[in-house]
Amino acid sequence: VGARSYTVIGLGAIGGFYGARLAAAGHPVRFVTRSDVDAVRDGGLRVESPLGDVALADVEVHDTEAARRGEVEPSDVVVVAVKTTDTADVLALLPALVHDGSTIVAMQNGLGVEGPIADAVPEHEVVGAMCFICSNRVGPGRIRHLDYGRVTVAHHRRDGAAAGLTDEVRAVVDDLAGAGIATVAIDDLAAARWRKLVWNVPYNGLSVVLDAGTDELMADPGTRRLVEQIMWEVVAGSTACGTPVDDSFVAEMLDDTDKMSPYATSMKLDHEAGRPLELDAIYDAPIRAAAAAGYEMVRTAALHDQLRFLDARSRRITPAGAARGTSRATPS
Amino acid sequence: VGARSYTVIGLGAIGGFYGARLAAAGHPVRFVTRSDVDAVRDGGLRVESPLGDVALADVEVHDTEAARRGEVEPSDVVVVAVKTTDTADVLALLPALVHDGSTIVAMQNGLGVEGPIADAVPEHEVVGAMCFICSNRVGPGRIRHLDYGRVTVAHHRRDGAAAGLTDEVRAVVDDLAGAGIATVAIDDLAAARWRKLVWNVPYNGLSVVLDAGTDELMADPGTRRLVEQIMWEVVAGSTACGTPVDDSFVAEMLDDTDKMSPYATSMKLDHEAGRPLELDAIYDAPIRAAAAAGYEMVRTAALHDQLRFLDARSRRITPAGAARGTSRATPS
Repeated sequence: VGARSYTVIGLGAIGGFYGARLAAAGHPVRFVTRSDVDAVRDGGLRVESPLGDVALADVEVHDTEAARRGEVEPSDVVVVAVKTTDTADVLALLPALVHDGSTIVAMQNGLGVEGPIADAVPEHEVVGAMCFICSNRVGPGRIRHLDYGRVTVAHHRRDGAAAGLTDEVRAVVDDLAGAGIATVAIDDLAAARWRKLVWNVPYNGLSVVLDAGTDELMADPGTRRLVEQIMWEVVAGSTACGTPVDDSFVAEMLDDTDKMSPYATSMKLDHEAGRPLELDAIYDAPIRAAAAAGYEMVRTAALHDQLRFLDARSRRITPAGAARGTSRATPS
Repeated sequence: VGARSYTVIGLGAIGGFYGARLAAAGHPVRFVTRSDVDAVRDGGLRVESPLGDVALADVEVHDTEAARRGEVEPSDVVVVAVKTTDTADVLALLPALVHDGSTIVAMQNGLGVEGPIADAVPEHEVVGAMCFICSNRVGPGRIRHLDYGRVTVAHHRRDGAAAGLTDEVRAVVDDLAGAGIATVAIDDLAAARWRKLVWNVPYNGLSVVLDAGTDELMADPGTRRLVEQIMWEVVAGSTACGTPVDDSFVAEMLDDTDKMSPYATSMKLDHEAGRPLELDAIYDAPIRAAAAAGYEMVRTAALHDQLRFLDARSRRITPAGAARGTSRATPS
């Protein structure tokens, strides 16, 4: 049996990094991307990484229009590695990229990102993947991996319940581990997504609103307390939604962040580059889910309102057609 | 009986405007100021105003050191018109500026500003004054009054209870009204200070954090809702502290702001100029008072934490000895 084939949608910091490593490990990998097609066809894909550089001279890369016309061969696994703000644009491509038994992997931030994907290919299994990585797209087909890289994987169920460690999850873990990527399989996707939000919700938002690094937010006693209060709101939201979080988790997150190198958060990088912020997936979805379960995330909602304001103003200022792309820095 | 004499401490947007009008109305007015003494002695005090310009060629002006040495003749009324961040610096001057029966007027923003003043001159009556004015100090002894100007006056009581319309309040109202200033006397100082905070707490803070005018904050549905939620927190804080606010007041404030010209808030101007923000008086005092009464102002406290962070960073960046002064724009 040969290595499973992959189609990776998105050639940014996430898709570029993980796709290149899967290709280097012997998987047939096809990339589908909105931009950079010619540059990558000519110049290949290069990842600089403390884990070892990867240089792929001959890359199968298609633009989204080709995928839309059904010109891309179906793969065993389709990885959605675009920012959540671009998910809507790629849903229509999915049916043509799969064959019977293909698995879709949502390698994205936030809560509830698997639902629309599952709706687009209702006969297929969807696996959620959370990447804890500092990686940047520094040019077309050029990725700079700075630190971390662990992926947490869990099976999506339409009813939100824990799916357990399914065959699909095991297969994705095997492929990623075989590509040298630390990968953790867990049985409850919603719980894992909420736990990741405990970090993302305070640091992403406050880093944008206050134009600050995580180190600055932790050094100031007031913002450190605010970070912790927001973390507790996310924990309470998760608990209200039926996935309790250990009380020790907040202290762990704070402690991990204290020890972290002062990278900029992905949302701060997006904001600085004039790209849209992932507010639906990281703020709106958990706030709504918690509210539906009877818990009001007050500070989180206030931060969300501030971020919407800044994002809307940035949209008005950024010229239409300005360069967009993905980059992720702080473990995101 | 001659017109009552005034000493005005602070020659900024507030002290300069009201002091000049009192002088033009025939009151002997002495100014005490940290800076601008020579410039005002030489060049006088000029106020440009839609209510009519005032130009005073011969101004009695003293620096704070002269006041400290007791070289300033006591006045019937001493007006504290410095920013609350500078109150601590002027408390020691007060005993030498008063005679038996002098009234002190705290013409400042925020909650609880009269307490330290009353402690500094315990034998004297203290009147709180809230100015609803757009005025800027545009140079030494140069004030530009843009709009509004109404003053609300109430007598301070150590126990925080309503003092009623006292002789001291009536006398201050008479003097200000005689100087052409719309003045309102009310019987409950704490209630009036809380009501003013209903406006100041959301707009001052959000205008700094989001670098936005009141018009922008009102045009965005999310920040407009956040403004209103913070207003309701201030109303609830006031109510918890024993001074209920009419339910219609929030709608009135929103409506007034919709109709207001888009001035920058005083706190935004302070922040842009690298001056310290009046966070103790406008945020810390009401948050603590409400908490002591059993109500937690959650969104207000989060905003306060954000402002402390920005203020502390600004303090680190602003060179020591940079120009400081007062300017007030949005009705503050």
